[in-house]
Amino acid sequence: MAPTSETLTAERILEATEEVLRRHGPAKATVVDVARALGVSHGSVYRHFRTKAALREAVTKRWLDRTSEALSGIVAEDRDPEGRLRDWLRTLFEAKRRKAGDDPELFATYTVLTDENGTAVGEHLADLTAQLTRIVRAGAEAGSFETTDPEATARAVFHATGRFHDPCHAREWERPGVEEEFTAVVDLLVRGLRGR
Amino acid sequence: MAPTSETLTAERILEATEEVLRRHGPAKATVVDVARALGVSHGSVYRHFRTKAALREAVTKRWLDRTSEALSGIVAEDRDPEGRLRDWLRTLFEAKRRKAGDDPELFATYTVLTDENGTAVGEHLADLTAQLTRIVRAGAEAGSFETTDPEATARAVFHATGRFHDPCHAREWERPGVEEEFTAVVDLLVRGLRGR
Repeated sequence: MAPTSETLTAERILEATEEVLRRHGPAKATVVDVARALGVSHGSVYRHFRTKAALREAVTKRWLDRTSEALSGIVAEDRDPEGRLRDWLRTLFEAKRRKAGDDPELFATYTVLTDENGTAVGEHLADLTAQLTRIVRAGAEAGSFETTDPEATARAVFHATGRFHDPCHAREWERPGVEEEFTAVVDLLVRGLRGR
Repeated sequence: MAPTSETLTAERILEATEEVLRRHGPAKATVVDVARALGVSHGSVYRHFRTKAALREAVTKRWLDRTSEALSGIVAEDRDPEGRLRDWLRTLFEAKRRKAGDDPELFATYTVLTDENGTAVGEHLADLTAQLTRIVRAGAEAGSFETTDPEATARAVFHATGRFHDPCHAREWERPGVEEEFTAVVDLLVRGLRGR
């Protein structure tokens, strides 16, 4: 058997932390719970994450990164910017909706965690806006979008679609008609991007 | 002195209810508190509002109606639809922001009340969307907006500006740059409305 010190990676700790958070909720979950779930001392956990706050921030970042990574592939695709923009927005909506719908307790837990980890959230939003900026810039260069400031335009698109990715709207994501609402907003934005 | 029965209007009860809610919070405020604030028996209050729930719903509706009324004047104005649309969205944003910023406790109270009064909120949103539909339809008739379904388009505009009127975004309304964000979204939507 391999010694624990070799197998106890940051990733394994984060996996266990997510499981502990799911089970105990964000108010009650402790580092001791995480250590117990892994069968290690809490000192071993602290060697990877110096404080409980650092561990909570890391697990939040990991959760947020899962969404960004799924989207970055669309940004890199070699095809028309409008199609990429539509797919990117739809994939973002679907990813968030799946997170909220498939595992509501974990989603509620991460809503608490994102509230206390402003930096991780800020970086996540900056990352998403940067991805969207790349698509908008590609569209401007190809002449299909009309904008002199792709970054500001990308931010406007991100804000205008907030109803379909901001967790504060999660309750609305399962309502009948939300698909049509999403399409209507995206169609209007795409028309705005095309300019006149 | 006029007898109490003459002066105790529904409006006076609602004013007192708002004041009681502001002072005690939505969890603790009772009909007895309202009656005491008015110097009447709780029976007198119940003659106007049959249940505590009915009273809470009426005070929520009154709070929401204040915003709708301020906006309806813009809809009725006889000038270019694009200007009316921009003013309407800006006035809505400013009204909500003022409510949230000037009296945060009352705003928090009404956030709780709107959560429990789905019907009043639904009617409020339907009213706002109907106002916006009138402006979009006027724009379509004047040839300045391109849409075959003014109601669906109005709803898309309303949803796309949610960041600037939905209470779940209240924390973002005082951040630096929110004005520019608002303008960028509205500019993009207006370009989308114009069509190509």
